Amino acid sequence: MSTNIPPQPSTEVDLIICSGWVITMESPDAVLEDHAVVIHQGRIIDILPCAHINQYKAKETIHRPEHALLPGFVNAHGHSAMTLFRGLADDLALMDWLNHHIWPAEKSWVDPEFVEHGAELAIVEMIRSGTTTFCDQYFFPETTALVAERNHIRCRLNTPVLDFPSAWAESADDYLDKGISLFKQHENHPLISVSLGPHAPYTVSDKALERVMETAKKYQCGIHMHVNETAHEVEEALKQSGIRPIERLNNLGLLSPQFQAVHMTQITDIEISLLANSGAHVVHCPESNLKLASGLCPVHQLQEEGINVALGTDGAASNNDLDMISELRTASLVAKLVDHNPTALPAYEALKLATINGAKALGLADDIGSICTGKSADLISIDLSAPELQPLYNPVSQIVFSAGRENITDTWVAGKQLMNQRQLNFINENDTFTFAKSWQAKIAAFKY
Amino acid sequence: MSTNIPPQPSTEVDLIICSGWVITMESPDAVLEDHAVVIHQGRIIDILPCAHINQYKAKETIHRPEHALLPGFVNAHGHSAMTLFRGLADDLALMDWLNHHIWPAEKSWVDPEFVEHGAELAIVEMIRSGTTTFCDQYFFPETTALVAERNHIRCRLNTPVLDFPSAWAESADDYLDKGISLFKQHENHPLISVSLGPHAPYTVSDKALERVMETAKKYQCGIHMHVNETAHEVEEALKQSGIRPIERLNNLGLLSPQFQAVHMTQITDIEISLLANSGAHVVHCPESNLKLASGLCPVHQLQEEGINVALGTDGAASNNDLDMISELRTASLVAKLVDHNPTALPAYEALKLATINGAKALGLADDIGSICTGKSADLISIDLSAPELQPLYNPVSQIVFSAGRENITDTWVAGKQLMNQRQLNFINENDTFTFAKSWQAKIAAFKY
Repeated sequence: MSTNIPPQPSTEVDLIICSGWVITMESPDAVLEDHAVVIHQGRIIDILPCAHINQYKAKETIHRPEHALLPGFVNAHGHSAMTLFRGLADDLALMDWLNHHIWPAEKSWVDPEFVEHGAELAIVEMIRSGTTTFCDQYFFPETTALVAERNHIRCRLNTPVLDFPSAWAESADDYLDKGISLFKQHENHPLISVSLGPHAPYTVSDKALERVMETAKKYQCGIHMHVNETAHEVEEALKQSGIRPIERLNNLGLLSPQFQAVHMTQITDIEISLLANSGAHVVHCPESNLKLASGLCPVHQLQEEGINVALGTDGAASNNDLDMISELRTASLVAKLVDHNPTALPAYEALKLATINGAKALGLADDIGSICTGKSADLISIDLSAPELQPLYNPVSQIVFSAGRENITDTWVAGKQLMNQRQLNFINENDTFTFAKSWQAKIAAFKY
Repeated sequence: MSTNIPPQPSTEVDLIICSGWVITMESPDAVLEDHAVVIHQGRIIDILPCAHINQYKAKETIHRPEHALLPGFVNAHGHSAMTLFRGLADDLALMDWLNHHIWPAEKSWVDPEFVEHGAELAIVEMIRSGTTTFCDQYFFPETTALVAERNHIRCRLNTPVLDFPSAWAESADDYLDKGISLFKQHENHPLISVSLGPHAPYTVSDKALERVMETAKKYQCGIHMHVNETAHEVEEALKQSGIRPIERLNNLGLLSPQFQAVHMTQITDIEISLLANSGAHVVHCPESNLKLASGLCPVHQLQEEGINVALGTDGAASNNDLDMISELRTASLVAKLVDHNPTALPAYEALKLATINGAKALGLADDIGSICTGKSADLISIDLSAPELQPLYNPVSQIVFSAGRENITDTWVAGKQLMNQRQLNFINENDTFTFAKSWQAKIAAFKY
C-alpha cells in the first residue's frame, strides 16, 4: 500500500495516525494490522506499518492502538434540519405523517434560523457518529452550506425542486434558479458541492424535470430524488399515467450515472434493468422505510445486477437518528431477510454501502470513500476495546454487528480533526443543547 | 401512584431516586415528570413528586434530572456464555453456522471455566445496557448461577435438556436430574430461579418431553424451548411425523402459561390458536432471526390474539450483542414491516416487550417488570440529554427510536446499584477484558 518511491527520511508531514487496524475499504483483504496513515495538506500521502513511521517527521502523531481507522461514513440521503422534528410524530403511515404532522410543522417553522439550528444539531450528531460527508435535501440549502462550511464537514446539497411554493421558492423555475445560483457559488469549493434535488415523481411535473435534466447536463451535477418510496405512490402514478415512475424518468432521459434514486422499496425487473443500464445509483434508507412500513429495497438483487447501492439515514424525523453505524447494521440484517439468505450483504459489503458506494453515488469516489493515497483524509477511528466488542475475531464483522456510535472516538475531514476522543473541536455542545430546547418549547406548544 | 396511607414524615428509607421522568410501564399515561422512587430493603415503597421527598429520610438520594427511570430490561432469551463466540462466524445460514462452527467450537471449548468467563462478560454487557433480569439456556447452568449471584443480577436459568450427550450431561434423564437438583438448590433464592430448557422439538424426544412436563408440573417451574426458529425444522418435522412442532407439543400437553416458545418465525393460524388457548408465551428474538435469515415472528398478529410476547437478544454469537434497547427498536421497526402497518408495535408497546411482558413470560410479574409499589427495585436510568436525543417531545418515543445503550447510566437490581453513571460497582472491567482476550487467542488459533 506504500507509495512506489520511498519518501526521504524525515519528510515533514502534518499528521500521522497510528491505528490497531486500518480498514481501507479498497478490498476485503485490506484490513491492515498496526498500520499508520500519513496525512499532509488534508490528503492521505502514505499508508505503512506503524513500525516504519519514523521515515516521516510529523507535526502531530496520534496513537489509537485499540482502534480501527476507516474512511468516514457517507450519509447519502437526509434532511439535516429536520432533526428539530425528531420524535414529534411517530408510529404513523407516510402520508398521514406528511399531511397531518410534518408538512404543517414545516409550514409553521421552516425558515433560515430553523435550518441553521437544525443543520447544526444534525452536524453535531453526524460528527459524533462518524459521518464525514452528508448528502442533504432541504429548504434554505444556502444556510445549510454555511453551517457545514463553518463546521468543516463535507456536504452535498441537493437543492429542492417542487411544483408548489414553499418558504424558500415560488415555483419550479424559482427553485431551479436558486439551485443554479448556489451551484455556481460553490464550484471548486473544497468541501461543499451542489446538485439538484427534485423532490419526487409525484411532486415535480415533466416540464420541470426536463429543465432539471438540462441543468444537470449543462453543469455536470447530480440529480437526487425520492423514487418509489411507497407502493401507494407507484399505484397513483400508474392510475394517472399508465406507467411506473422509473419508466417515466427514463422516458424523460433523467436516468444516468448522475442520477440517485432514493428509497426504491418498490421495484420490478424492468425497473432494475432501466437503472442498471443507465448507470444510475440507488440510495437505500432501511430504518426510515421500516418505520414508515414503506417496504424494503432489495439491495442484494440490485447489486447482483451491477447497480451501485449507497446508504442514507433519511431525516431524523423518520428514523429517528442520523447514526450510520446502526443504519449499516440494519441494512445487513434486513438484506438477509428480504433475500431469504443469511449470506446476503455480509459485513464488508454493508460497510461498503456506508463508505465507497456512497462516494460513488455522489460522484466523489476520486476524493473520498476509501483510505488510499491521494484521497482526502476523511477518516474515523472506532475503539474496539469496549466489553460489548470482546472477544475480537474479525474487526469488520465486529464493527458492523456489535459496535455502536458511542465507540467512534475521532472524526477527521480533509485532515482536520472534528472530534478528538469524543470531544468536538469546533462546536460547543451546550449551545446546541440550548437552542434545541428553545425550538422544542416553541414547537411542542404549537397546535397545528 | 402514592401509597394510600401517607407515610410519617421522616420515615427512614434506604434510597430515593429523583428522576426527570419516571416511566412506570403500568400504563401508557404513567410517564411521570419530576418524580421520585422510594426504595427500602430492595423494594419500591413509594412513587411521588420530587418536591415531596422530604417526607422520607433516605440513607442515599440520587438525582437524575435529565434522565428517565424505567424498570430494568428483561432479556427473555439468551445463551450468556456464548459471548466468547461473538463474531466467530457471521453471515452464515443457521444449520451451516451450527454444524460447522458453533457446535464444533462448543465441543472444543465449553467447560465450567468457559461458562464462568463467558457469563461474566455477558453480565458486564447486560448491566451496561440496562438488563436487570436475564433468562439463560446453556450448559453448566450451576456456574452461570454462581456468576449471576456474585454480581447481584437477576437470572432465570433454563437447564438444558437434549437427547444427546454434552460436556454437561450424558442423557435426557441426566440433564433433567441435574436440572431438578439445581432447581431445588435455588428455591426461594431472591435473585436466581431455575426452570427447564428442552432445546428444541427436533433435539428432544417425546419421552424426554413427557418427563419435562411432569417435572414442570411437580415443581411449578417454567419450560423454555426454541420452537419454529426456521422453516427447515418445521418441514423436517412434517416429513417425519406429519404434524407441526406446536401441534406435537400441544398433544404432549406441554403448552400452558408455564411454556415459553422462543423464536416462532414460522406460524400458522392453528398454531396461534393453540398458543393463545393454552396461555403460552412467545419470546421474539428479531435481530438473531434477521441475521440468520430465519424469518420473523408476526408479533402484532400474536398480540391481537392475546398472546403475551416477550423479547430476547439470543446469544451474542448470533446477534452479535446483548443490547435490549437496540433489540426493542428493531422489534418495533420490523413489526411495522411484517404487518405492512406503521402503527404496529408503537414505541410504548415495544418497551413493554422488553419489560413487563418479559416479566410475565417468566412468571415474575408480581416482582419485576414495572415500577410499582411492592415490586423489587430493578431499575435503570437513561440520560436523555445527549445531542442525539434532542429535541425531546416524547420520552418513550425517544428511548425506543433514538436512544442507545450508551445513554443508560445506572442499573439497580433489588435496590442495589450495579452501575453508577456508567461505572460498574462490582466488576472490574479490566479483568473481563483480560480473560476475554485470553479466550480469543485460544479460540482464534484453534482449527475445528
